[in-house]
Amino acid sequence: MDSTQDRLDLGWATLDTDRAARTGDPEVVFGEGKTADQVVAALTALAANHPDRAILATRLAADARQLIGSALPAAVVDPVGRTALLGSPPKPSGTVALVSAGSSDAPVVAEAAATLTAFGAGSEIINDVGVAGVHRVLAVRDRLLAADAIVVVAGMDGALPSVVGGLTGTPIVAVPTSVGYGASFGGIAALLTMLNSCAPGVAVVNIDNGFGAAVHAARIARRPTGGAEDRTRVP
Amino acid sequence: MDSTQDRLDLGWATLDTDRAARTGDPEVVFGEGKTADQVVAALTALAANHPDRAILATRLAADARQLIGSALPAAVVDPVGRTALLGSPPKPSGTVALVSAGSSDAPVVAEAAATLTAFGAGSEIINDVGVAGVHRVLAVRDRLLAADAIVVVAGMDGALPSVVGGLTGTPIVAVPTSVGYGASFGGIAALLTMLNSCAPGVAVVNIDNGFGAAVHAARIARRPTGGAEDRTRVP
Amino acid sequence: MDSTQDRLDLGWATLDTDRAARTGDPEVVFGEGKTADQVVAALTALAANHPDRAILATRLAADARQLIGSALPAAVVDPVGRTALLGSPPKPSGTVALVSAGSSDAPVVAEAAATLTAFGAGSEIINDVGVAGVHRVLAVRDRLLAADAIVVVAGMDGALPSVVGGLTGTPIVAVPTSVGYGASFGGIAALLTMLNSCAPGVAVVNIDNGFGAAVHAARIARRPTGGAEDRTRVP
Amino acid sequence: MDSTQDRLDLGWATLDTDRAARTGDPEVVFGEGKTADQVVAALTALAANHPDRAILATRLAADARQLIGSALPAAVVDPVGRTALLGSPPKPSGTVALVSAGSSDAPVVAEAAATLTAFGAGSEIINDVGVAGVHRVLAVRDRLLAADAIVVVAGMDGALPSVVGGLTGTPIVAVPTSVGYGASFGGIAALLTMLNSCAPGVAVVNIDNGFGAAVHAARIARRPTGGAEDRTRVP
Amino acid sequence: MDSTQDRLDLGWATLDTDRAARTGDPEVVFGEGKTADQVVAALTALAANHPDRAILATRLAADARQLIGSALPAAVVDPVGRTALLGSPPKPSGTVALVSAGSSDAPVVAEAAATLTAFGAGSEIINDVGVAGVHRVLAVRDRLLAADAIVVVAGMDGALPSVVGGLTGTPIVAVPTSVGYGASFGGIAALLTMLNSCAPGVAVVNIDNGFGAAVHAARIARRPTGGAEDRTRVP
Amino acid sequence: MDSTQDRLDLGWATLDTDRAARTGDPEVVFGEGKTADQVVAALTALAANHPDRAILATRLAADARQLIGSALPAAVVDPVGRTALLGSPPKPSGTVALVSAGSSDAPVVAEAAATLTAFGAGSEIINDVGVAGVHRVLAVRDRLLAADAIVVVAGMDGALPSVVGGLTGTPIVAVPTSVGYGASFGGIAALLTMLNSCAPGVAVVNIDNGFGAAVHAARIARRPTGGAEDRTRVP
Amino acid sequence: MDSTQDRLDLGWATLDTDRAARTGDPEVVFGEGKTADQVVAALTALAANHPDRAILATRLAADARQLIGSALPAAVVDPVGRTALLGSPPKPSGTVALVSAGSSDAPVVAEAAATLTAFGAGSEIINDVGVAGVHRVLAVRDRLLAADAIVVVAGMDGALPSVVGGLTGTPIVAVPTSVGYGASFGGIAALLTMLNSCAPGVAVVNIDNGFGAAVHAARIARRPTGGAEDRTRVP
Amino acid sequence: MDSTQDRLDLGWATLDTDRAARTGDPEVVFGEGKTADQVVAALTALAANHPDRAILATRLAADARQLIGSALPAAVVDPVGRTALLGSPPKPSGTVALVSAGSSDAPVVAEAAATLTAFGAGSEIINDVGVAGVHRVLAVRDRLLAADAIVVVAGMDGALPSVVGGLTGTPIVAVPTSVGYGASFGGIAALLTMLNSCAPGVAVVNIDNGFGAAVHAARIARRPTGGAEDRTRVP
Repeated sequence: MDSTQDRLDLGWATLDTDRAARTGDPEVVFGEGKTADQVVAALTALAANHPDRAILATRLAADARQLIGSALPAAVVDPVGRTALLGSPPKPSGTVALVSAGSSDAPVVAEAAATLTAFGAGSEIINDVGVAGVHRVLAVRDRLLAADAIVVVAGMDGALPSVVGGLTGTPIVAVPTSVGYGASFGGIAALLTMLNSCAPGVAVVNIDNGFGAAVHAARIARRPTGGAEDRTRVP
Repeated sequence: MDSTQDRLDLGWATLDTDRAARTGDPEVVFGEGKTADQVVAALTALAANHPDRAILATRLAADARQLIGSALPAAVVDPVGRTALLGSPPKPSGTVALVSAGSSDAPVVAEAAATLTAFGAGSEIINDVGVAGVHRVLAVRDRLLAADAIVVVAGMDGALPSVVGGLTGTPIVAVPTSVGYGASFGGIAALLTMLNSCAPGVAVVNIDNGFGAAVHAARIARRPTGGAEDRTRVP
Repeated sequence: MDSTQDRLDLGWATLDTDRAARTGDPEVVFGEGKTADQVVAALTALAANHPDRAILATRLAADARQLIGSALPAAVVDPVGRTALLGSPPKPSGTVALVSAGSSDAPVVAEAAATLTAFGAGSEIINDVGVAGVHRVLAVRDRLLAADAIVVVAGMDGALPSVVGGLTGTPIVAVPTSVGYGASFGGIAALLTMLNSCAPGVAVVNIDNGFGAAVHAARIARRPTGGAEDRTRVP
Repeated sequence: MDSTQDRLDLGWATLDTDRAARTGDPEVVFGEGKTADQVVAALTALAANHPDRAILATRLAADARQLIGSALPAAVVDPVGRTALLGSPPKPSGTVALVSAGSSDAPVVAEAAATLTAFGAGSEIINDVGVAGVHRVLAVRDRLLAADAIVVVAGMDGALPSVVGGLTGTPIVAVPTSVGYGASFGGIAALLTMLNSCAPGVAVVNIDNGFGAAVHAARIARRPTGGAEDRTRVP
Repeated sequence: MDSTQDRLDLGWATLDTDRAARTGDPEVVFGEGKTADQVVAALTALAANHPDRAILATRLAADARQLIGSALPAAVVDPVGRTALLGSPPKPSGTVALVSAGSSDAPVVAEAAATLTAFGAGSEIINDVGVAGVHRVLAVRDRLLAADAIVVVAGMDGALPSVVGGLTGTPIVAVPTSVGYGASFGGIAALLTMLNSCAPGVAVVNIDNGFGAAVHAARIARRPTGGAEDRTRVP
Repeated sequence: MDSTQDRLDLGWATLDTDRAARTGDPEVVFGEGKTADQVVAALTALAANHPDRAILATRLAADARQLIGSALPAAVVDPVGRTALLGSPPKPSGTVALVSAGSSDAPVVAEAAATLTAFGAGSEIINDVGVAGVHRVLAVRDRLLAADAIVVVAGMDGALPSVVGGLTGTPIVAVPTSVGYGASFGGIAALLTMLNSCAPGVAVVNIDNGFGAAVHAARIARRPTGGAEDRTRVP
Repeated sequence: MDSTQDRLDLGWATLDTDRAARTGDPEVVFGEGKTADQVVAALTALAANHPDRAILATRLAADARQLIGSALPAAVVDPVGRTALLGSPPKPSGTVALVSAGSSDAPVVAEAAATLTAFGAGSEIINDVGVAGVHRVLAVRDRLLAADAIVVVAGMDGALPSVVGGLTGTPIVAVPTSVGYGASFGGIAALLTMLNSCAPGVAVVNIDNGFGAAVHAARIARRPTGGAEDRTRVP
Repeated sequence: MDSTQDRLDLGWATLDTDRAARTGDPEVVFGEGKTADQVVAALTALAANHPDRAILATRLAADARQLIGSALPAAVVDPVGRTALLGSPPKPSGTVALVSAGSSDAPVVAEAAATLTAFGAGSEIINDVGVAGVHRVLAVRDRLLAADAIVVVAGMDGALPSVVGGLTGTPIVAVPTSVGYGASFGGIAALLTMLNSCAPGVAVVNIDNGFGAAVHAARIARRPTGGAEDRTRVP
């Protein structure tokens, strides 16, 4: 085996133990396609490598969440967002507003909230303010303006980011969700809406990818004010 | 040839001379795929069959518009909407609000406006009030409420109908346009947005189909107040 | 929490309690992606806000329908259309013809019928008159002409609206259904057929969206004869 | 070079000179992607190999049609269907009804008509009887019933084959055309409609493939009445 | 209710009792989307209307097949093809060769075979002769040439019809199947292959539509030798 | 006309003159679908409304660029990026690294660079460091780490953002380009790659949307260090 | 039945018993769409025909694997790769490097490994070296260079083959996997990435097709050094 | 600028001057999206860096081919394949059979042939042996068996690789072409056919990518017989 200090070879996996040094955050366990045993093994190994930083696992099936609950009692497991967090999260710095268009978007909001915690940003959650009742989002404009970055989560027509994008110059990350039916095509409709937003500067992540949006937003929110040089190790 | 009173066989075409009796409106000449000569021949034949009602032609290429201009000087030709109207339009009854999200949607707005005229409805045009500056559409809410039906034309993210649909209970027809690029896929993005509108009751027509939206809206706007029975001939 | 008179903040949801004032109809509970508990909570809260108007819930899973049956015995639950109606529906005005191409389209017809009731329009249901036996639809032309609006529900080839659209000038809303297999692609084939209807004025809603078609049609059918001004509140 | 009696190697092409023996009809020159010179060379070589049977070329660009006109004056060139026919066609046997939904489908009808001639079947052409005026196709039912096979050509909603298929048990081949715009997607809408026809027994060919439909229909129409054994050579 | 001699109104369905008179074959019960009770009711009603002709039901779920087995013991139920046949099929005339590319295509072959029986044509079944071992299909060329029509069933690459189409001039109907994975996209790959066949005259039906291919082929095979006039009733 | 201080009604357009107050940046002229005259009129009107801030126009056709050159000689026109900039850009603050995978991505890089200027961020351009020679991007890692945000532009396989995303924790915006052919589908391949990036936190914009990526990145780079409160006007 | 020495007719299947003679390898049993009984019957018959060569079965459902385990105890069954191998595999010659981007790609890696064994090539497995930690693949470059062919397995963004393709001139076969969610569309994203690889010479197989990639790679790796002439029988 | 010995920074491009050392072949100039001047500059710079090895340019527009002809008279320009070759190609070793299904595939064959020359493999070209006349490919089986690798080029149904793949165990690379119309979707149909080939071991490249197929095949054909170790530099 050729494991070294910058990676850990488990045979079935090669953990990137150098990632925190390069990017500021440790590797995350992506639960899909892994057995419950593999999830626990990866979580355990990464936690051992990062004693001072929480390790996040996402997209956990029910059996993986159950095994974590019994094998790693220190982990915080969220059944709605299907995440687990093992270890102490960083002290949050900055704030990300996390806005959803409908209450059915809850699982994606939960995944994003757990990720913000793991990546060290604070969050302000505003649920169910879709554009069919546009006064609801207009009413929370002050809370949006107070944030360092905004994550907008929407399914069906995916129109909310375009409206939010016209109300503020804060960087916005839009997350299309698979909420809908028929010609929503599992979230494609919302994804295309967001990619074609008439409000400038809306960036988009994969369907239901609350995780990715939160990573991007957290890195904006927690940016040090003194310049970019010290953020990560330059080898 | 088996032409009869309810159809006119031109060999290359079988005109539906009975359509006005069945549906209240004569057949329209669809210009795409027809030579300029065919367009003029169809317009002439239909006009002869409907001496008291304007005949509309849509999707006219430049050569067809030019030939109409010289061969049928009485026709009103619109180069923006690519339409021609030959004969006297009906006296308008009712009003359709025709709202666009961006100024690039102008050709579709023009096609819809000409169609409203041909199908006997009045129109109120409101241009370029897309949701990236949502105060623009909120400011015209009174004009929307005064209409009998609303046609909303939008490309790119196609989000405007969802906002309009939350402001009023007037029947709305949404027209996606091919304005946009990349992942707008020639209007598919806007089409899907509108089909998935979170505002209830938004009905949709084909991409760039200002004609079809206007026909639907005109038939709502001009409905007689005394009941449905007398509207069309029951054979 | 920032709830006000025009919205009700439940934490996980922000109910649009102002919608009836703006659009003439209260918010509807969209059941997909909600737990049974959430559906019942939303229904209960909206009913409390609209004591004189029925609240509709759609796309209810079996467990939600069951919980409504036990927790809200006054609700009328329809297992075919997967709807529930809580409270007194308005007195119907006008008539919508609800026409289906095949008997397998029944769930969409049922959702549309419940929605017409909730939105205050009468309905005339005509089942299974698809174009492979075109005499069936020709035989009911009188019933179609007597309606104020027509909803046509069809899967597979989705051809029925084009035939109906040639028989009458009444406004038509077409609903593609997911009935079919293979290259029907879950209703895409019927959707595209309807968007490309050669009969002018056919407007379309999302696949299996009996609800949306009925809202659009009900708003046509129930329109007051004396003008548009009084329909909704102008703030 | 390894040319033999069953193929002719031109270097850039390997003509299938055995095809008439195997299938009853010689190879056809597919014009797309060939230079005008290549088209003329292939036509000439195939005609030399089949002195008693007409050779067909399809999808000819303007320059190829022009060169054929000057280099092979005996050829019959059709600019609408973009075909050329060199040599004597077989005596027609049987009849194929060739029905179009709209006058814009003319190029596909013309290609099919030339192919029927080349493959030895008679034709009965009925233009522009789309379902928006369904009385037009009902009026020609007798002519449809008199045919041995029916080719139905339609763009936009592609609904005509479903209606024709309910009127007769004659074998039907449906040809979707690229007539339409927006969500017709260059004929995909009509193609899907036809593949999902609610009338049983409708078979479909590629978009704008009047050639293929006519080959299939001609082989039905011209079938000998005495059994299948003698139709083609069994080596 | 407006039932007449040419249709039978069951409330939830309008049976086309005139179809046999118009097309030569009675209506078929399409099982998808119907309850087991509805399937049995439709079968019973159609059988009562056509005492001398078998009624076919297709796409039957397990519960429907079971209920038919107990409620209609005279019916012949095929679990592989998911069909039922109630009543005496016509005496077969002509022969259809039914060729499959792989043994996994068996359900589609079975549906086609039952349909050929119900529609009065003989069948010759040749299984698993896909082009990866092209000698297999070359070896059965005589059996193909003896048929009046050929149905070719293939999934994955869908290449078999192109090879068969080069071996014979007999009319070919190709059936793409959903056999495959990944980029077969549930049969789309095979469908597109067949629509683009380089062998002329291949007509195609929907994915897994063994029924439709068999109807088309049976109507070719059983055609009377004395002309088309007597085939169906001209009203 | 109902123009007010927060919008300017030109009849064919409703300029959003309030946008800078709400979002920190004035409206941009989107050139597609506008005539050259309309582009110049919109540029002129917006410049008059924002005397101290440059106005950007994008996606300018050749005739629009030419007319701007003659009618507005103060404008800076870039034929590669198809942009124009009229007025003084803000003093740049912060730095955005603008990285391309191939030299054919130049037009998108140019559009992004002009936008960064207009939106007040500095830029560091690194061209043609695609992953087929991965040492090229590894060699510039220091320049990437020095940036406040990174825009990665790539066509074809779109793989570069995933590699960059593993080298740094700086916020990354990925721009898929339409560079490629065949199964690149005009940039869809690269778009999907980026949406599925295995490096966390990559956000994506529309195909060829250098403008949108630059707006998002500029807003990150220029963020004030003292908190979010003062960034935009709260009305 | 017309079975001969080059094929074996089982009625429901026509085994290609000549394939090893033509291509060097016997037919493989494709398990999808076959019953467990059919899988065992095909395995048994092929093994009887090839007493000196292992027979492979792929895509085996759980019941088929179980029946093989009990009925054919000599078979080696792999539940991860869903394969079975019956008989003695050839002595391996040459080496194929089998590289995966993530640990969730394990089933495809396992199917490929079993296939390499069955087709007579050695394998070198390197797991979980995706490009988000590009140092992992750079660290194993020597192992890649030592191989005769490389199979690269990746889901999500599918970017790994482009990086590997820039590190070596060894022939590469890329396998997209269905690992991912949302806009990965079941592996389409990775498939398109690989088809558009900016590294020259990357060839691609179907999504999750570890089998096909391994066959291609094994045939490269095991090629005799003395020329191509003796590899397979020329009849 | 940070150019070094392993890359050459031209400002608008970063040439990978180390590629030949890593992969055995120098970088190729991809002409699409480059100006004629850029193509000539890149060709010149790469040729200067590789004095003993020919440099290839592909996908050259007419103006680029013309400028190369005048500015670099030593280059060999092919207008059919749209390639240029500057410098001495390697002595060919091994043979690649280059097989096309139709004569319209000629441009892709020409691009592949030029690439085989540039990458040091011999070629054996066999044109127009598509499966509609399957005897044509059976007749050349000996020539296929004599090759070290086979490139099969086909448009429309893309069926040829499946037949070739059943005739030989030689590694096959399939190239789908954009030849076809309608539902060929610019080569998607052929691409899907090839990805789903029922013959094992067929690997596929992008639509019209004769270049990529030839690189893969050349690397197979020219492999040294004494092991893999010496093929490329291990740094």
